[in-house]
Amino acid sequence: TALKLGMIPADGIGKEVLPAAQRVLEALGSSIPKPTFIPLKAGWEEFQANGKALPDETVKILKEECDAAMFGSVSSPSHKVAGYSSPIVALRKHLDLYANVRPVSSVPIPNQKSYHQCDMVIVRENTECLYIKKEEIKTNDDGSKIALATRQITSRASSRIGKMAFEIALRRGQEREQAKQAGKDVWWSGEPKVTIVHKSNVLSVTDGLFRESVRAIKEGTDRYNGVKMEEQLVDSMVYRMFREPEIFDVAVAPNLYGDIISDGAAALVGSLGLVPSINAGDDFVMGEPVHGSAPDIEGQNIANPIASIRSAALLLSSLGYVEPAARINAAVDAILTEGQYLTPDLGGKASTTDVTDAILKRL
Amino acid sequence: TALKLGMIPADGIGKEVLPAAQRVLEALGSSIPKPTFIPLKAGWEEFQANGKALPDETVKILKEECDAAMFGSVSSPSHKVAGYSSPIVALRKHLDLYANVRPVSSVPIPNQKSYHQCDMVIVRENTECLYIKKEEIKTNDDGSKIALATRQITSRASSRIGKMAFEIALRRGQEREQAKQAGKDVWWSGEPKVTIVHKSNVLSVTDGLFRESVRAIKEGTDRYNGVKMEEQLVDSMVYRMFREPEIFDVAVAPNLYGDIISDGAAALVGSLGLVPSINAGDDFVMGEPVHGSAPDIEGQNIANPIASIRSAALLLSSLGYVEPAARINAAVDAILTEGQYLTPDLGGKASTTDVTDAILKRL
Ligand SMILES: CC(C)[C@H](C(=O)O)[C@@H](O)C(=O)O
Ligand SMILES: CC(C)[C@H](C(=O)O)[C@@H](O)C(=O)O
Repeated sequence: TALKLGMIPADGIGKEVLPAAQRVLEALGSSIPKPTFIPLKAGWEEFQANGKALPDETVKILKEECDAAMFGSVSSPSHKVAGYSSPIVALRKHLDLYANVRPVSSVPIPNQKSYHQCDMVIVRENTECLYIKKEEIKTNDDGSKIALATRQITSRASSRIGKMAFEIALRRGQEREQAKQAGKDVWWSGEPKVTIVHKSNVLSVTDGLFRESVRAIKEGTDRYNGVKMEEQLVDSMVYRMFREPEIFDVAVAPNLYGDIISDGAAALVGSLGLVPSINAGDDFVMGEPVHGSAPDIEGQNIANPIASIRSAALLLSSLGYVEPAARINAAVDAILTEGQYLTPDLGGKASTTDVTDAILKRL
Repeated sequence: TALKLGMIPADGIGKEVLPAAQRVLEALGSSIPKPTFIPLKAGWEEFQANGKALPDETVKILKEECDAAMFGSVSSPSHKVAGYSSPIVALRKHLDLYANVRPVSSVPIPNQKSYHQCDMVIVRENTECLYIKKEEIKTNDDGSKIALATRQITSRASSRIGKMAFEIALRRGQEREQAKQAGKDVWWSGEPKVTIVHKSNVLSVTDGLFRESVRAIKEGTDRYNGVKMEEQLVDSMVYRMFREPEIFDVAVAPNLYGDIISDGAAALVGSLGLVPSINAGDDFVMGEPVHGSAPDIEGQNIANPIASIRSAALLLSSLGYVEPAARINAAVDAILTEGQYLTPDLGGKASTTDVTDAILKRL
């Protein structure tokens, strides 16, 4: 059988890093079903060319033909453009990819300004909060304007993201146990832990519902008895992540807070160019580097392909191909710790192709 | 004449750090009008005792009798409590303190894990965004729940906060020029700069309005020709603040983003216990340390009083008493760089009283 993957490079460096991930997937040989890649359109450039940021055709093919997908990155206009709406936000919604799972872990890379021990997973709710994009604007009699946006939090979406977070924490705990028994060095010593991120001291109703729904996941079963549960207000979360990132294991957050804290976590591990994610639903999964389209370095073959390559690994592992995923990650870690092939975001001089070649050699 | 200051310690360590600020204000002698201090009630403890988090009496006295005020910190219940609502959010609204001005600047303190060069001011809109607390919740037929919150952005509030930001940038530019001419070491070399923080790639209407309103402030006059204007998406802002905090001068943000990025900035300079703020309106100003009520260290006389003491300085300077404010700041900086009297948040063993005494001796 084959593995049919929709490939949506979209804008900017997405068009450089997604092909790098594709090369790595192609190199895995018989450890995965032979992948076929279906190029699909979306993005700001596509909007400018053909008037739609997310063509119906793209969604149709993803739904009907693909087993999974990879997304690159999107550019956005800085002001409102009639008819344009972020295709990544729309895709998450159309495919009900309700969880954005973002593992952020540090690898000691030579010559970095600072090194923070960090190995956490941010589990971001991916379908609601302010991202439902219900906005309106009115002009008052005096010419001034008032704009309103609706933030939606439901018990259903909060519960399922909470469940995802606890399942991930449970699995991480088991993996750490296995690693310890295999004689490996595991620095996390305590129980697995889920930190609920919210701002219920101000948003007692919406964030109150998020908080309660996630809490109820643990409280409703014995399954998570071995997983600790803590809470952090979102402002305090950003503060603590920078002061003591090593205290976090799994963090679960509503959409916007999740967006913000995952960029913060990326800064801790050296570069946004290192942080992968998957957008996951019950039936479909889409890998996506956390970085943006970086128009300033587009077309120069210097974008870091690692976030995309790691996203491909994360995708494979979520499809059950755990061994080839681990192989990719081991190759990436080796390249990073050696420090010979680093792109400019990490202070190196290697090109996108150099880094990808080096990883391929290691596979 | 006298300076009448409302003192609202509220909860937790607020009750320890506000008296420290008071001692410093009392020690300034004839450089300011003789201060009188009017103790006022508010907070979670007050709510539990008497059923109101912000007694009417407190607001009345602030409005009718006080020239300015100092606020400590509030505790919040972690779940919704009928009748309780954050008194600090309410005070900002009642007194129309529309700007929360938070200068974050680094001082080289001995024995800190890391030192980041940082000298920025976060100008946070203080009256709207999700902080209007319009929330509702409904139960669906299947028992699931949906909660909605309204986020409000107006051109009026965005313009006035934008103006405040450009004025602060202008003044900082002038102060740096003066310092340079006086032969002092000033590391910021370029023009003053305002960075607008938003998320208009998703919230094109509300954040679009914020962005446009702030941009129009610069574009509508020649007054700010010497001030650069840039933009950062809020997620990217958190990322960049941690990677290169030295590139920021003044940042202006809607309420919630401002809340989050100022905690992030606090992590950069060593401790939340160092970061002051004022809540400023056109007719009234209230100093407030950025930290919370820290119930875990309450009553031990180990809270860092510096955020409150610096808030008192900021308050004085906004009332026009620039010289005594500068004296307080110089004393604080001296104590920090010497490193003999540091509270536990900075790795020291000094008590709240020790640090305050040391600052008083330096004045
Ligand atoms: C491009 C933007 C809409 C997106 C988001 O906010 O979700 C990005 O920041 C991300 O994190 O994937
Ligand atoms: C206590 C809380 C309501 C408050 C806020 O979110 O504004 C605090 O975090 C702050 O920054 O002053």
